[in-house]
Amino acid sequence: MGPFLACDWGTTNLRAWVVGEDGCVQAQRDFPFGVSRLQPGEAALRFRHEVRRAMGAEQLPAMLCGMIGSTLGWVVVPYAETPIDLPGLGRRLYRVAESGPPVLIVPGVRGPGYTAAPEVMRGEETQVLGWLALDPARSQGVRVLCHPGTHAKWVIVENGRIVRFVTFMTGELFDVLRKHSVLRAEENPADEAAFAEGLEAAGEGDALSARLFTVRTRVVAGDRRPESSASYLSGLLIGSETAGAPRLLGFERDLPVALVGEPALCRWYELALRARGRTVTVHDGDEASVAGLRALHMEGVRA
Amino acid sequence: MGPFLACDWGTTNLRAWVVGEDGCVQAQRDFPFGVSRLQPGEAALRFRHEVRRAMGAEQLPAMLCGMIGSTLGWVVVPYAETPIDLPGLGRRLYRVAESGPPVLIVPGVRGPGYTAAPEVMRGEETQVLGWLALDPARSQGVRVLCHPGTHAKWVIVENGRIVRFVTFMTGELFDVLRKHSVLRAEENPADEAAFAEGLEAAGEGDALSARLFTVRTRVVAGDRRPESSASYLSGLLIGSETAGAPRLLGFERDLPVALVGEPALCRWYELALRARGRTVTVHDGDEASVAGLRALHMEGVRA
Repeated sequence: MGPFLACDWGTTNLRAWVVGEDGCVQAQRDFPFGVSRLQPGEAALRFRHEVRRAMGAEQLPAMLCGMIGSTLGWVVVPYAETPIDLPGLGRRLYRVAESGPPVLIVPGVRGPGYTAAPEVMRGEETQVLGWLALDPARSQGVRVLCHPGTHAKWVIVENGRIVRFVTFMTGELFDVLRKHSVLRAEENPADEAAFAEGLEAAGEGDALSARLFTVRTRVVAGDRRPESSASYLSGLLIGSETAGAPRLLGFERDLPVALVGEPALCRWYELALRARGRTVTVHDGDEASVAGLRALHMEGVRA
Repeated sequence: MGPFLACDWGTTNLRAWVVGEDGCVQAQRDFPFGVSRLQPGEAALRFRHEVRRAMGAEQLPAMLCGMIGSTLGWVVVPYAETPIDLPGLGRRLYRVAESGPPVLIVPGVRGPGYTAAPEVMRGEETQVLGWLALDPARSQGVRVLCHPGTHAKWVIVENGRIVRFVTFMTGELFDVLRKHSVLRAEENPADEAAFAEGLEAAGEGDALSARLFTVRTRVVAGDRRPESSASYLSGLLIGSETAGAPRLLGFERDLPVALVGEPALCRWYELALRARGRTVTVHDGDEASVAGLRALHMEGVRA
């Protein structure tokens, strides 16, 4: 395998890695220009003049995943449809019209939702493929992955193929409610007891708009300190998500869940799932992204 | 019964009525200074110099309900505890230390919630008692009332006593999500088809943070017009509430629901409940408030 430049170009940031011939990361750097901060036409310039230069990667082929393939990004890359696996996604890589070494964008994935509206992802599909590539045994049987975040994704993989998934806007709800609602809650040092109390209050994930109100009543009419509200709210929302996902996606509650994401955030999900007696494994999101981009780079070279 | 000045002094506004000897409303007026807009100490001055004067009610006894009895209001009136009925609340009326004709504040009501935190209301208890007073038959058996609003209340009444209740922050979620989240939705002319689609997407009221995301996907990756998003979001939230309330409050799904509130908002709840095959009656919230304040005024005179 030749060396290449791997990028997860998301909404807020761009994470870039130079991956060597041996498949190992030789350099890593973050850039503050996610697609939500780009003007039209700016992506190509930023990539050429800042990312390539800063990474010392002017001559390397590049593999990009994430929101860079959306309407806000460099070019709109059509979604691949479920069910999809590594060779399938490798065949749909989009080559940007750019002189010099090839720049490929990984398509997002689209699948049916539980309503008439479809579900979509851009970036998580690469983490799923990376997670699969890191251990061939994972491509056997039914697997459940959860990617915590602003818009958390739960993904069902059957025999190495992404078959269906669903989005919970848990992270965004947390932010919006604590900044703009009567539930106003400062981010404070994590309070595990309050988080556990929130998990408990989540019940079976039903009646969330009622359960949310307890963030306020437990302080105003109860005896809890306002400083614990953010942790309680977090427990309530993550508890509601972890309770609701199995039914919405139709998977058995006793299947293990692989958490793939930012380690500190995964830890809260781990607590929530273990409180429900679930088996959990935790995997670094960046490692999964790099592994996915590497696997797709190899597929691309082969094709 | 002597004439009196009736006020529902809420968070945003104050509604005032002069009620005559015959029990009928002789004058009505709204004032823009709800408790959230008052400085400490301002309530008494506003009431004496603006409300009494504007209503020509300088010499009338007054009966006030709502947030005016909260920490933001005139004076903090301790909650009455469930179960509570009209005579019970009448005995707990709070007389403000004010020269001239008596000014009484109706206590809010507190009851156990479904978590360790209690449930509280200020204002709706008066509407419930008013609704009961308007028809003696309503004080027999088990009744379910729903008060739509920023913080909607569902109340169970057994033989004329408020026995338990629960709060859904549906109205606030609607506002916060359409103003501050990725679901950003302009308020547009009501779209009944989109509302019905939202009701359908609410499922059994579970997994709300996932279902909310369909407000976005149905437009971005589906084929729905963004102008229909607000009505869809409203259907999703009200559908989730009406699905979740029976279980949370533990009442039979075939009990009729009495909607008490602002008629235009009640209409959406009526649509949602009828779509689930529920029997619904609709009652004007202001009429219920006046009836409750009148019943309490008579109790107070008697005591």
